[in-house]
Amino acid sequence: MSSTNLHRDAIVIDGLVISNWSRAVFEDMHRGGLTAANCTCSIWEGFRGTMDNVAQWKRWFEECDDILLQVHTTADIHRAKREGKVGIILGWQNTSGIEDQLGHLRSFKDLGVGVMQLTYNTQNFVGSGCFDSNDGGLSDFGREVVDEMNRLGILVDLSHVGPKTSEDAIRHSKKPVAYTHCCPAGLRDHPRNKTDEQLRFIVDSGGFVGFATFPPFLPRDAETTLEDCVDAMAYVVDLIGEDNVGIGTDFTQNQSADWFDWLRRDKGYARWLMDGRGTTAPMPENFRTLAEYPNLTAAFERRGWPEGRIAKILGENWVRVLKDVWGA
Amino acid sequence: MSSTNLHRDAIVIDGLVISNWSRAVFEDMHRGGLTAANCTCSIWEGFRGTMDNVAQWKRWFEECDDILLQVHTTADIHRAKREGKVGIILGWQNTSGIEDQLGHLRSFKDLGVGVMQLTYNTQNFVGSGCFDSNDGGLSDFGREVVDEMNRLGILVDLSHVGPKTSEDAIRHSKKPVAYTHCCPAGLRDHPRNKTDEQLRFIVDSGGFVGFATFPPFLPRDAETTLEDCVDAMAYVVDLIGEDNVGIGTDFTQNQSADWFDWLRRDKGYARWLMDGRGTTAPMPENFRTLAEYPNLTAAFERRGWPEGRIAKILGENWVRVLKDVWGA
Repeated sequence: MSSTNLHRDAIVIDGLVISNWSRAVFEDMHRGGLTAANCTCSIWEGFRGTMDNVAQWKRWFEECDDILLQVHTTADIHRAKREGKVGIILGWQNTSGIEDQLGHLRSFKDLGVGVMQLTYNTQNFVGSGCFDSNDGGLSDFGREVVDEMNRLGILVDLSHVGPKTSEDAIRHSKKPVAYTHCCPAGLRDHPRNKTDEQLRFIVDSGGFVGFATFPPFLPRDAETTLEDCVDAMAYVVDLIGEDNVGIGTDFTQNQSADWFDWLRRDKGYARWLMDGRGTTAPMPENFRTLAEYPNLTAAFERRGWPEGRIAKILGENWVRVLKDVWGA
Repeated sequence: MSSTNLHRDAIVIDGLVISNWSRAVFEDMHRGGLTAANCTCSIWEGFRGTMDNVAQWKRWFEECDDILLQVHTTADIHRAKREGKVGIILGWQNTSGIEDQLGHLRSFKDLGVGVMQLTYNTQNFVGSGCFDSNDGGLSDFGREVVDEMNRLGILVDLSHVGPKTSEDAIRHSKKPVAYTHCCPAGLRDHPRNKTDEQLRFIVDSGGFVGFATFPPFLPRDAETTLEDCVDAMAYVVDLIGEDNVGIGTDFTQNQSADWFDWLRRDKGYARWLMDGRGTTAPMPENFRTLAEYPNLTAAFERRGWPEGRIAKILGENWVRVLKDVWGA
């Protein structure tokens, strides 16, 4: 099968997109053949800010219903594939949106939030972040949060979570958890990357790994090519097999340098957590926009991967783990 | 000097009162000869709830200006003494009131909040609480909070803070910090009590200890008498000297069992942190209301303490440490 057909026929799921949302971006996702994506709607926002973001998404679902469809269950993902639409899974990169209220988890689940990262880079009520100089682990309240997310069917995302908090959450959760978007520290030492041991541990515990095509996490940084991404994914597959791996690009299409700076500071305004001030971080060449998603599949094929593996990594694995967690 | 005169002439400062605020309670404080008290106006509340509480206090300052006076500096404490009024230091038992905004510290300092406990029993952005099963220490954001409190002149209170977070805050703070209301673990093992080592460490680091007359922290629990309290204070004075000790009763006058249950659960509603459900925790006999404050001074005198020590512990020590921190 030609690459175009393989991509066209596959269920293609992106485990993390955090773009500057607009009709133009949705059209690129549609053109790129995405079946569904975990779309970030909360990072540093509290309850009110997150509710505002959700309200905006509900307007987009109505205004763009020719190409978008909200995903609550994996049946919705299959429906998106059948109808040729992009399924939107609302997701959080922080639990700041519930503020101090466990009860908000239920409300946001009902609103379609199917993935929540426990912490974004720094400490909150639940645990520590990967940029904290000290990680105290999953808090007692954090255990209540994970219990409730398990009960409601919300995927626990640990990508930006500190190593001890991640380990605690992996041990505590009764449902699979995920690093939805990360790269291997075995290839580049970076606070956001995961060691071989961490990658093995999450998968051995029934969890999942989404691979990020985000150049700052990869050895050649801004020079990273799509081929480098596939090499790095091959490293991950070699380490943990091909059944518990997917893609989570961390696509920041159309985001400004100001927005990146907001990400780079604690809570959006406090101390700087990382370098790069005043810059953006583009995706690899030939993958600059979400419309170019078929080029990723083509790179898998050029590397000679069997179609079965490509289909699993493009989306089948994601559908399985989401069904495990969501229950449908 | 008779006990009545000693009490009447002394500056009497209570380092922690958390009563069910009303004109009736203020009248008892006035009758009891309190010169000033650190009055809790935020426990589990966030920014909005705390602002509501502060607004209520501002109404009380106007409505009860015959007996109350707001304290911003230690000069206000001396003025309260001269004018025969009760000085109100607004205080927090949590940093939940700033939510994620360092900038709110400045606003609340301007509104008269002169004391802030970093955490109330459980983890927040700043650190862990004394009821957390694991204490990860002062967070990086917590260091920013302490720096700003130092700069603004807000006393760092560690009474309900976890042991590691407390130690980190003591080491990090450039101004004296305090356990405003605690009892010695050497007399009773309790998550809220401080070990001999902790009491020595805070004082050796330039900090301060306020003694709580709160029966649940003391060996004879509900049977605790005022004499038992003075014995326990003698234990503390023996350990760390008489110059860095004061009183912080933890007076919960007129609070209901429902309110105590709100305190006993994480964030006011989540898991139970301690026993006692459905009960209140009265102060010792002859000290049931704030109007009976002279009985505490009488108990010091009956024990034969020199007047100089009594005056220091009743309030002079507090004034000194507050001046150190507030700068005036």
